[in-house]
Amino acid sequence: MPAAVPAGIFIAPRSGSGGCTDTMSLDFAKLDGLIPAVVQDEESGRVLMLGFMNDEAWRKTVETGNVTFFSRSRNKLWMKGESSGHVLKVKEIATDCDDDSLLIKVKSLGPGVCHAGYESCFYRRLEGDQWVESEGKTYDPNAVYGGSK
Amino acid sequence: MPAAVPAGIFIAPRSGSGGCTDTMSLDFAKLDGLIPAVVQDEESGRVLMLGFMNDEAWRKTVETGNVTFFSRSRNKLWMKGESSGHVLKVKEIATDCDDDSLLIKVKSLGPGVCHAGYESCFYRRLEGDQWVESEGKTYDPNAVYGGSK
Repeated sequence: MPAAVPAGIFIAPRSGSGGCTDTMSLDFAKLDGLIPAVVQDEESGRVLMLGFMNDEAWRKTVETGNVTFFSRSRNKLWMKGESSGHVLKVKEIATDCDDDSLLIKVKSLGPGVCHAGYESCFYRRLEGDQWVESEGKTYDPNAVYGGSK
Repeated sequence: MPAAVPAGIFIAPRSGSGGCTDTMSLDFAKLDGLIPAVVQDEESGRVLMLGFMNDEAWRKTVETGNVTFFSRSRNKLWMKGESSGHVLKVKEIATDCDDDSLLIKVKSLGPGVCHAGYESCFYRRLEGDQWVESEGKTYDPNAVYGGSK
């Protein structure tokens, strides 16, 4: 019987023939084991958030197809949407010329990615020297999170 | 005579009345004085690169209207395009809910932002477990940089 195919859209063997086991590797050294990952809505092109991944979060993201970060504040893996249901499904992954950041295009399963209730975490724009809210909320964060992220 | 208006599109006084001098401030503490800044093409919506800013680079970016990073490898301020002429003109700046990352929409004055010759630094996509170049170069980096960034 063939091995089960993982739920993610990418097949990412950790070992195998051809010496290709580390081709997915990224440069985590510059930032003490973390790299920034930009999340962009695949359809609208809107940048939704930026999170950090360690190697484990990165592998989880690829293997499961669900964007998974390393939470710096909670010091643990954090699958986006694990409490809210607002999961980010991976559609495409790109890395940059230095292998030290990621761009992940997603389909967002919720009305917003921001724990404050907005579609995007980037909901404040600079006007003069002030940060100004530039859009309305897309959901009630208290109803979803009840005080936690 | 009124003070000269800086070249940037934002007016960002460092001191003045109203106690608003620090409203532009961001949370640089989480990452040893740096925050990641995502650069997005204002017209196409393409994410072009990700760089890091310290407080000085951030202020320079706002005051001049030219995206300025802090180069971790060279340990100094780096106005994007200072050697190539491929300057990134600021069109809009947003910050995220935690004040610890930036999204900067720009007009890019060059054929590409990547020192390797591509429009975007994110020119490689994950296919299976391999990073694969997904587009051609838009300029000859040797002709522009001659071996340096």
